[in-house]
Amino acid sequence: VGQAPFARDKFYETTPPGVVMGLAWTPLGGATLYVEAAKVSGSEAKGSLTTTGQLGDVFRESATIAHTFARNFLADRDPAAAAVLAGSALHVHVPAGATPKDGPSAGCTLVTALLSLAMGKSVKPDLAMTGEVTLTGCVLPIGGVKEKVLAARRSGVRVVVFPEGNRAEYEELGQELKEGLEPHFVATYDQIYQLALGH
Amino acid sequence: VGQAPFARDKFYETTPPGVVMGLAWTPLGGATLYVEAAKVSGSEAKGSLTTTGQLGDVFRESATIAHTFARNFLADRDPAAAAVLAGSALHVHVPAGATPKDGPSAGCTLVTALLSLAMGKSVKPDLAMTGEVTLTGCVLPIGGVKEKVLAARRSGVRVVVFPEGNRAEYEELGQELKEGLEPHFVATYDQIYQLALGH
Amino acid sequence: VGQAPFARDKFYETTPPGVVMGLAWTPLGGATLYVEAAKVSGSEAKGSLTTTGQLGDVFRESATIAHTFARNFLADRDPAAAAVLAGSALHVHVPAGATPKDGPSAGCTLVTALLSLAMGKSVKPDLAMTGEVTLTGCVLPIGGVKEKVLAARRSGVRVVVFPEGNRAEYEELGQELKEGLEPHFVATYDQIYQLALGH
Repeated sequence: VGQAPFARDKFYETTPPGVVMGLAWTPLGGATLYVEAAKVSGSEAKGSLTTTGQLGDVFRESATIAHTFARNFLADRDPAAAAVLAGSALHVHVPAGATPKDGPSAGCTLVTALLSLAMGKSVKPDLAMTGEVTLTGCVLPIGGVKEKVLAARRSGVRVVVFPEGNRAEYEELGQELKEGLEPHFVATYDQIYQLALGH
Repeated sequence: VGQAPFARDKFYETTPPGVVMGLAWTPLGGATLYVEAAKVSGSEAKGSLTTTGQLGDVFRESATIAHTFARNFLADRDPAAAAVLAGSALHVHVPAGATPKDGPSAGCTLVTALLSLAMGKSVKPDLAMTGEVTLTGCVLPIGGVKEKVLAARRSGVRVVVFPEGNRAEYEELGQELKEGLEPHFVATYDQIYQLALGH
Repeated sequence: VGQAPFARDKFYETTPPGVVMGLAWTPLGGATLYVEAAKVSGSEAKGSLTTTGQLGDVFRESATIAHTFARNFLADRDPAAAAVLAGSALHVHVPAGATPKDGPSAGCTLVTALLSLAMGKSVKPDLAMTGEVTLTGCVLPIGGVKEKVLAARRSGVRVVVFPEGNRAEYEELGQELKEGLEPHFVATYDQIYQLALGH
């Protein structure tokens, strides 16, 4: 109690390949968080995925889903990047390391971190996202829209990505809460890919 | 109760490669502790990591993060040392063995112990550190700055490394508490590398 | 309650290779105990370590630390013995099997049992030891010095090995308690090796 759930929301000036900002809901309000994906240099555990960051069961399953979806998503579009995922031991971490995190809404953030890493390409700057992803890439609605909007503005985010299913809830928020934000609403993951990595 | 959390804070006169002094916070105040990293001679479990020392979940995850980060950090800078980590079964222990330890703030100490071991190089003497590390090497702020300063002085440490995010808190401490200490504040791990192993 | 913590303290007349007497502290007073190490014939789990004897978390971690340290200790000094540890499935048992045991102070006893087994050499007779061992072989102080001295005398031990950090406590004990004992105080494990296996 009394401790911010995510200390120092924004600690990257620009994010390297593999790092993507997500929007999270916590009992103390909204927060931005980073999903960090990295290869484990020299590991022979090809195709494996390690997760850290005090992730709960649902979050860890989201990472497993993201791992499968990202590999399938790249298989046709970018075989070289797909081979990076298949041929690497991967590690996903979500700072801060002592803060328990759970829920499915980081699904699209996890997928994007893995794609960004595999492609060696940074995500568009000042963009943050939230949304559950299914194994075939459908994006499902999430909770805490208002809190996440506040967190995005607090961290200087400009482009926010929400599930199509949260559009009405977003549009009902007062204009003063959303000032300066460019919202996008997506129903399938490929729309996020275009926004975040299609540049 | 009544037992010091870390018996005999300083039991190395000079630390061999693989051993690094960290600053810890405990319910009874600050303490110095050592992180000890060693290869397991003759083991065929290449790339594995064993941890001991009654480490809690967050501490064990910190070791996993440090393991991945250290391998990636060395991959470009020192391929021979990177190969040591990839080709060895590693063991990290944190004495005293009966004292439960947890939290993310040993992250930078764990990374440094692994780098020191891989490079076969001792850390600069009279240096102690504290700081959470993310998977890409960002250093995040920690708690218990005052208690850790007191512990550092009690153990005869000269150079202390804190996260940049704790600078203000450090500077507000009374001058008499900090006498004789040379503080460094870092935002990314490579700054610690220069301080501890760049000599 | 009412059951002696370690039934029949001394049940070896002379100890075979792999068996070493330790000094333990229990809620009912001091006790001697044996650490027994053996190879598991025909096992293909090379490099593995099984432990039995109702050992608590800290005791089991002590065995893991001892396993790593013993392998590294022998790597240079006795490559043939190091190969025994690397190439065998090992089993460490601490009788009596129904008595729960915990704590880090059997560290040096565990190391010595593994070295004795690997070298095929019995430990010097009438010697018992106590001390926590770190991953690099520092010997840390333990509790219950007085109780362990009484137990050593009760079991007919002549040579007792204590950590250097317990020297003052030992020297303060009344002379009548220590009569007939030859104490040694050690700061690093190699001193125990000389005493127990250097003959």
